[in-house]
Amino acid sequence: MIENAFYSQEKHGPYKLFSLGNFELEEGGIIPDCKLAYATHGKLNEKKDNVIIVPTWFSGTSKDYESYIGKGRALDPDEYFIIVINQIGNGLSSSPHNSLPPVSMQSFPKVRIGDDVRAQHRLVTELFGVQEVALVVGGSMGAQQTYEWAVRYPEMVKRAAPIAGTAKNTIHDFLFTQTLIDAITSDPGWNLGEYRSNAEVADGLKRHADIWAVMGFCPEFFNQEKWGLFGVESAEELVEGFLEPFFQMMDPNALLAMAWKWQRGDVSRLADGNLAEALGRIQAKVFVMPIDTDMFFPPTDCEREQQMIPNSELKVIHSLAGHFGLFGGEGPSYHGQIDEHLKALLAVPVSESIVEQ
Amino acid sequence: MIENAFYSQEKHGPYKLFSLGNFELEEGGIIPDCKLAYATHGKLNEKKDNVIIVPTWFSGTSKDYESYIGKGRALDPDEYFIIVINQIGNGLSSSPHNSLPPVSMQSFPKVRIGDDVRAQHRLVTELFGVQEVALVVGGSMGAQQTYEWAVRYPEMVKRAAPIAGTAKNTIHDFLFTQTLIDAITSDPGWNLGEYRSNAEVADGLKRHADIWAVMGFCPEFFNQEKWGLFGVESAEELVEGFLEPFFQMMDPNALLAMAWKWQRGDVSRLADGNLAEALGRIQAKVFVMPIDTDMFFPPTDCEREQQMIPNSELKVIHSLAGHFGLFGGEGPSYHGQIDEHLKALLAVPVSESIVEQ
Repeated sequence: MIENAFYSQEKHGPYKLFSLGNFELEEGGIIPDCKLAYATHGKLNEKKDNVIIVPTWFSGTSKDYESYIGKGRALDPDEYFIIVINQIGNGLSSSPHNSLPPVSMQSFPKVRIGDDVRAQHRLVTELFGVQEVALVVGGSMGAQQTYEWAVRYPEMVKRAAPIAGTAKNTIHDFLFTQTLIDAITSDPGWNLGEYRSNAEVADGLKRHADIWAVMGFCPEFFNQEKWGLFGVESAEELVEGFLEPFFQMMDPNALLAMAWKWQRGDVSRLADGNLAEALGRIQAKVFVMPIDTDMFFPPTDCEREQQMIPNSELKVIHSLAGHFGLFGGEGPSYHGQIDEHLKALLAVPVSESIVEQ
Repeated sequence: MIENAFYSQEKHGPYKLFSLGNFELEEGGIIPDCKLAYATHGKLNEKKDNVIIVPTWFSGTSKDYESYIGKGRALDPDEYFIIVINQIGNGLSSSPHNSLPPVSMQSFPKVRIGDDVRAQHRLVTELFGVQEVALVVGGSMGAQQTYEWAVRYPEMVKRAAPIAGTAKNTIHDFLFTQTLIDAITSDPGWNLGEYRSNAEVADGLKRHADIWAVMGFCPEFFNQEKWGLFGVESAEELVEGFLEPFFQMMDPNALLAMAWKWQRGDVSRLADGNLAEALGRIQAKVFVMPIDTDMFFPPTDCEREQQMIPNSELKVIHSLAGHFGLFGGEGPSYHGQIDEHLKALLAVPVSESIVEQ
């Protein structure tokens, strides 16, 4: 267990902690006193049917979704009870750096998307008594969790909107994520996960950030010199002044825990490897929302899956920022699309719950 | 100077060597007794107007173009005198590992695309007395050299076909190439370029290969499981059985010399940074031939440049192998397109040479 000021209420709050007790994992092992960090917006109504669940993306926290939420927006806290839940291993929820032995640092067990969604299910049912979810929406790894929610709890999830992510991770994406992992673990300072401070892994985290610079945006972003979307004035400043220090503040083992999980996102595990069967179980109305310039969750990958989902539509988001369009730097031109689609989705009447088989 | 059996007549021949003597470089410094390795196909005709020049791509050699050349093909040795010239630093031509002090290993000076093309110009004029080139064609870094030929020697180059490459490298591509460089130089075995054998840099070369696995192909290649194009039966075999050992055979300093050069390919250097002016000087008929699934020389980047070239057309090549479509693994479905376009280009009548200003 080590200190890292990046993961704090000051930087990423306000958030609360929900304790799962000893939480058993799909890959085996237990996280003792496992905690989920979560943030809420709005109020749960009496019928408890105004819940929106928002799971976090790789390296992100509940803070990152604040630009998606607001009065008059699709995610309107005046209307909905929005629960943004930090994935296990993200640095706020139970993670390698904030856990005690025997699950501290390199000993933190492997966590899967399915573990996260089971943990989140316990949070919303046990803590809030919720049995119906109006919408699950999330970007990137948040989309992986969104799919997992819709397949694992089909009678509970009324609507789902996976943004810039897939239900079953592709080989290409696996290989990409592996380069992120290798950039960190090749740093001698990583020391098999037993560094004393993330600063000792600064070189590896820098290389990890530099690969993100290539894959996180897209060629057109650079050609049109869209640095301004991220508040900087040059490509150099974007990489050296923003991306590198951004990732260097984070915990290497947290990034590695999430990357391992991301590589293996796959709802077909719930149906003996049959993706069509797994996606066919979804009862929610689904808007599949890839970003058109995304280099590792491209629209073709998302459309292939969308076609296996019974009650679904493909809604391609236009962005010049590639996958990092998710950060919302384009402002209304991005969020306007997201809000338009999510409002339309939320306006779709839900059928009566079908009793779980 | 170290031995590396990969760069040999057995593996990459037959090739010959042309000596440039002491060759001065744009960045300063000299390569003493600088040599270009080259291979020829066909015979120079009496008018010396049947010459096709083919410069090599990153990590490639003259051997790699053999699948582009043959009887009845566009590059037909019965009709043309085809000179395939290895770029400086590629391991066959003068390179860090095969040079003697004071330019051996880490002391090898920085080489630019312009140096290569000046050296190649000396080869074809001094060795063969050629003053007119029917076609310059090359892929990737070969395209960079093709553009440099057409801008630097506009009266001499009658036709040009840059495949999957740009005239001015983009920032996105620069950042991608930097990750390739960092993968190698972050290996302690690289030892600032003074390793005793490329085997000492095996880890860095592996990471370098793994980044290529992400950027060299494209998502659709993996989704359609097109491993067979490269003679293997799985993605794992593609990466671990083909790409990793492929790059691990190579010399790290050679890859770094080429990568540095690639990052800085830019014909606008010939016109005080004005790309439109530089490309406007081209007198050749030009077919700009990007590959539609290329992740770092995408068609949009190539089309932007094509529109600045007076007598040019955009011919997009369809491939499921991304940039690595260049390897020709798709066989006739790839080479058929290349041949069709190059035959059409070679059939375009050339105007009389305009005397150089």
